[in-house]
Amino acid sequence: MARLATLFTILAFLAPQASAAPPASMADILAASPPSDWRALDPANTIYLQLPKGRVIIELAPSFAPHHVANIKTLIREGYFDGLAIVRVQDDYVVQWADPDGKRPLGAAAASVKAEFDRAYDIAEPFTPLPDPDTYAPSTGFADGFPAARDPLSGKTWLTHCYGMVGVGRGNDADSGGGTELYAVIGHAPRQLDRNVTLVGRVVRGVDLLSSLPRGTETLGFYKTTAERTPILSMKLAADVAPGDRAPLEALRTDSTTFEALLHNRRFRHDDWYKTPAGRLDVCNMPLPVRDVGGQ
Amino acid sequence: MARLATLFTILAFLAPQASAAPPASMADILAASPPSDWRALDPANTIYLQLPKGRVIIELAPSFAPHHVANIKTLIREGYFDGLAIVRVQDDYVVQWADPDGKRPLGAAAASVKAEFDRAYDIAEPFTPLPDPDTYAPSTGFADGFPAARDPLSGKTWLTHCYGMVGVGRGNDADSGGGTELYAVIGHAPRQLDRNVTLVGRVVRGVDLLSSLPRGTETLGFYKTTAERTPILSMKLAADVAPGDRAPLEALRTDSTTFEALLHNRRFRHDDWYKTPAGRLDVCNMPLPVRDVGGQ
Repeated sequence: MARLATLFTILAFLAPQASAAPPASMADILAASPPSDWRALDPANTIYLQLPKGRVIIELAPSFAPHHVANIKTLIREGYFDGLAIVRVQDDYVVQWADPDGKRPLGAAAASVKAEFDRAYDIAEPFTPLPDPDTYAPSTGFADGFPAARDPLSGKTWLTHCYGMVGVGRGNDADSGGGTELYAVIGHAPRQLDRNVTLVGRVVRGVDLLSSLPRGTETLGFYKTTAERTPILSMKLAADVAPGDRAPLEALRTDSTTFEALLHNRRFRHDDWYKTPAGRLDVCNMPLPVRDVGGQ
Repeated sequence: MARLATLFTILAFLAPQASAAPPASMADILAASPPSDWRALDPANTIYLQLPKGRVIIELAPSFAPHHVANIKTLIREGYFDGLAIVRVQDDYVVQWADPDGKRPLGAAAASVKAEFDRAYDIAEPFTPLPDPDTYAPSTGFADGFPAARDPLSGKTWLTHCYGMVGVGRGNDADSGGGTELYAVIGHAPRQLDRNVTLVGRVVRGVDLLSSLPRGTETLGFYKTTAERTPILSMKLAADVAPGDRAPLEALRTDSTTFEALLHNRRFRHDDWYKTPAGRLDVCNMPLPVRDVGGQ
């Protein structure tokens, strides 16, 4: 109820004469957001994946997959991914990058890490639930800036396979993934993968550099020839890049009143174009705003 | 119940020793399908959208949007779309093609057609329902080869905005669309558009030719320059193409026992890779098989 009351407060603030004024747009709501509703991306948990056409920025989710995230950071710092390639682009599914030859040394990193498909949650943890039914989970919402789900019966929580989410490829053994093969979702959320793969983060900038790549024509979207692959020029942690070369990004806190107002806005599209607002929202249809504060 | 019994029959046929044999894969189920479970695409309701890199094939849905489909056919037969362009590619949303200058004559076609957002349904109409909850609709399933939804309270049915679905752009007036601007979904299903736009069909081949296009950098994904646009070489009905130049495609009937078996297979992924089958299926996560029978 406190959350709802705050929501009404912010809505009233945005549209003092709510009954007469047009409803606040998403842009209006963001423009009115207080600085405290935003958080700077942590350079130690932000990846820069450099492709020939630009930089893809990924925010890691150590609160959901601490061991995989740690192993991926080790791989990154050893330069494991530099010079590798995008080897697979399957339409309406995933883009995957890996060592095509499987010969690169792992150094101090582990070849595999025990699965982190889900974890126990504490009811006091920040979680902004969606009130609408979900096909795949008893409850969905947002945690730490990521789309997530919860099952109160088992007491487990997990990240959900929405567009732009990044996961760890694995073999048939649940514990066979380690982070040497990573994928990003570029299609309709393949939610059947939830709790079957370890998700480690999400693309916050440049997902179009992945989603617009030519599709591979072999089974599962693998490229037929090496020439079709997109090279990975480098993959670095933002913390290891000179401060002047970092992208100064802030993400909207998903436990903020601004985010609650956005959720309301997206569930009830009261603008001139929508004739039948859904009154519902799929966890994978909610934009998670990220802004560049370089100019401020 | 009859449907369920038939499903068990086909499953038993596919795996006579169901308790011992490995479960049938999607490929197994399709390989065992009888010819009567397939239907040839109707050339009068099949569009060939020719782009420089290949042909996109769209199946029209006259049972859901008869007036829009008729108007689009008139436009096509007048050559309205030939030489137009893809003007908009918005990541995780839509590809849109239209007359960028809005100057092309409409001939006998109407500039706008009354909205066909939904329609009444008869309970006897073929509809293969999904048993799982959906965020946006009381009931979802498949009708005439398309993903669809129903609301038993209002007695209405409508097509759902899944990946690859094709719709009619419109202005703020519900009745302002006519088919001169068409879009295809290339991202997570924007189901909030359901019942707000008239859907007219779906891409059955070549959606990757649309989804892999470079994204536009202007608002809503419009291209900044004309040079960025992809030209539409032609847009024709299959019926107006010489038989030898047609793609001989068949779609799996969504009211067939084979399709029921596939639905079961996708809800319960009992293979070596899946550790936690979802036991659920989103209407937009079900592949709708189309096969080329040219070689048979």
